Amino acid sequence: MHVEHLGWSRSGALRLLDQTRLPSEEHWLEIATLPALLEAIRSLRVRGAPAIGIAAAMGLVATLRFRAPGGAGTSGDAAGPGTEDVAAARAAFLALVDETAWAIAAARPTAVNLRWAMERMRRRAQAAVGAPEAVLDALRQEAQAIWDEDRAMCGAMAEYGQALMRPGIRVVTHCNTGALATGGIGTALGIVLLAGERGLDPEVFVDETRPLWQGSRLTAWELQRAGVRFAVQPDSAAASLMAQGKVDVVLVGADRIARNGDVANKLGTLPLAIAARHHGVPFYAVAPSSSFDPACPSGASIPIEHREAGEVTAPFGVLVAPADSAAFNPAFDVTPADLVTGYVTERGIVHPPFEE
Amino acid sequence: MHVEHLGWSRSGALRLLDQTRLPSEEHWLEIATLPALLEAIRSLRVRGAPAIGIAAAMGLVATLRFRAPGGAGTSGDAAGPGTEDVAAARAAFLALVDETAWAIAAARPTAVNLRWAMERMRRRAQAAVGAPEAVLDALRQEAQAIWDEDRAMCGAMAEYGQALMRPGIRVVTHCNTGALATGGIGTALGIVLLAGERGLDPEVFVDETRPLWQGSRLTAWELQRAGVRFAVQPDSAAASLMAQGKVDVVLVGADRIARNGDVANKLGTLPLAIAARHHGVPFYAVAPSSSFDPACPSGASIPIEHREAGEVTAPFGVLVAPADSAAFNPAFDVTPADLVTGYVTERGIVHPPFEE
Repeated sequence: MHVEHLGWSRSGALRLLDQTRLPSEEHWLEIATLPALLEAIRSLRVRGAPAIGIAAAMGLVATLRFRAPGGAGTSGDAAGPGTEDVAAARAAFLALVDETAWAIAAARPTAVNLRWAMERMRRRAQAAVGAPEAVLDALRQEAQAIWDEDRAMCGAMAEYGQALMRPGIRVVTHCNTGALATGGIGTALGIVLLAGERGLDPEVFVDETRPLWQGSRLTAWELQRAGVRFAVQPDSAAASLMAQGKVDVVLVGADRIARNGDVANKLGTLPLAIAARHHGVPFYAVAPSSSFDPACPSGASIPIEHREAGEVTAPFGVLVAPADSAAFNPAFDVTPADLVTGYVTERGIVHPPFEE
Repeated sequence: MHVEHLGWSRSGALRLLDQTRLPSEEHWLEIATLPALLEAIRSLRVRGAPAIGIAAAMGLVATLRFRAPGGAGTSGDAAGPGTEDVAAARAAFLALVDETAWAIAAARPTAVNLRWAMERMRRRAQAAVGAPEAVLDALRQEAQAIWDEDRAMCGAMAEYGQALMRPGIRVVTHCNTGALATGGIGTALGIVLLAGERGLDPEVFVDETRPLWQGSRLTAWELQRAGVRFAVQPDSAAASLMAQGKVDVVLVGADRIARNGDVANKLGTLPLAIAARHHGVPFYAVAPSSSFDPACPSGASIPIEHREAGEVTAPFGVLVAPADSAAFNPAFDVTPADLVTGYVTERGIVHPPFEE
């Protein structure tokens, strides 16, 4: 069974496995406030487009749960507040939901799932009847539904992706797209994990994924737990493997897919796609429909998050560049659709344009 | 003026700036024994194909200087040994030169300059007349000549390379190809450093160069000292810059160039060349003639050094992957000639095949 890295605590807080401390430590966080949630998302304690969406939805509920005063929402209750009081409390609470959801949605700009989850939660709040407590209950159900649906979508993607697998297949993957990136078995890595469970004995070349080593730290950790063969490698080693004919397929995730099929994903995806095309290796993006953004015509419209220089110049606080060196550190790049062989989604393997 | 990172000590030992400790520390080594020399080359305390050749030649002399007994080599000297004694001592010394040169040549397999320098030293020893001391003197002169010629070749390459420069030019470079990699101003980076000296205000995007950060540690250090604008970046960021039209030229060095023009160079050169071709950015290899190997028909014949997993999985001893993870860690890759726009050498900008 794959790793469960998030959940509800007994008190209703958001529980998260702190991904910045893997693989050396399995440290769990209990998140009950908005600042703690924003910090966890910005610091990549939870990351991976689908996982961010789920954590944001659950975190929204966790941070609002002590701020939903005003009774049980059954206005007929003799001891309850009057209808006007309920309406006022409800309006105030909906405003709070809005404000909080916007703050969370802005925590990271590139992954569309974050914005998607927050819009879905806001719509659900608007549609819920009754007092704040009832709205909060509806939000809790919606967050759970987002998680449950993601788990199901991961399962479906992993199944459809088996069409790309064969015994002993050699896969290059980038960043982490496994259970840790989602609410289920994963996206791109989920396909490989399922192939492993089914005895196909895949071999995975894991891009270390600079600057934050999500490949070495997270993907390798998941593969080791699952007993799948792997080797970690500098991100620039994949091209050598391809030149030697040692790569059968490249599987990556996506933080946002534009209507024309352009894929924003972890920095390093673009050179991998270019190298795959150069060597005739098939290249697939694997993502649930929540990562597709029909409002976005092409990759040029996708905002790219730029992160601080220290991630590049001072790994673990050790200065590897002269003090005060500038750094170019975009968290994501954009792979043009024409470099993508296909898109594995929960509805099958599809091709652009994506109209929804 | 560029950095001088090697030289003779007063006692005739090899002085080396320990490049593994830059940029945080400027620590000098005095190398007087073969084990110390081999360790310095294998551990990359001196690296860069031309610099390795020079250090190997000077180090050969430094390690042999206390092992050349048998007089001043003037057999007419009244107090000197007889002719037969001189011949025996000379033969024994030449055998020692051979043995030591072979050991040094085998320290790293990919850079041809190392083998080239050792063959040149062996030929000079054979050609030198007289007793061991005279042979040693000839070797000392030859090592100095190798250094002086490299300095001159660097100057010539930097001059020829100015044809590729223009005001404000934006350059991507990989690994370190500056003064620290050579006996002069550098190869690829030398072109940029000279352009900087001439007021062209180049801007350099410095690939950090995993796993050993020669770009962040060494190239950024040289550029900062020279007052040239730069930003360090993860190796996988160069493709994003190219996609945004922000790169005018890619300049790299070479550890060995085959007769057909295939270039073995630091891991990461191949994906950079592929990305440059994809985006229509010119890509030049810059190397002195000592890096060309006419005995090598193509890149397929170039032995590629594979280094230990820990360089990838445990930077600075911090484990970033699960314990016992396997790693794919070739030190070099091979860029096919058809991806190379041109070769900047001390004789001008040339094109294959190279018959020499």
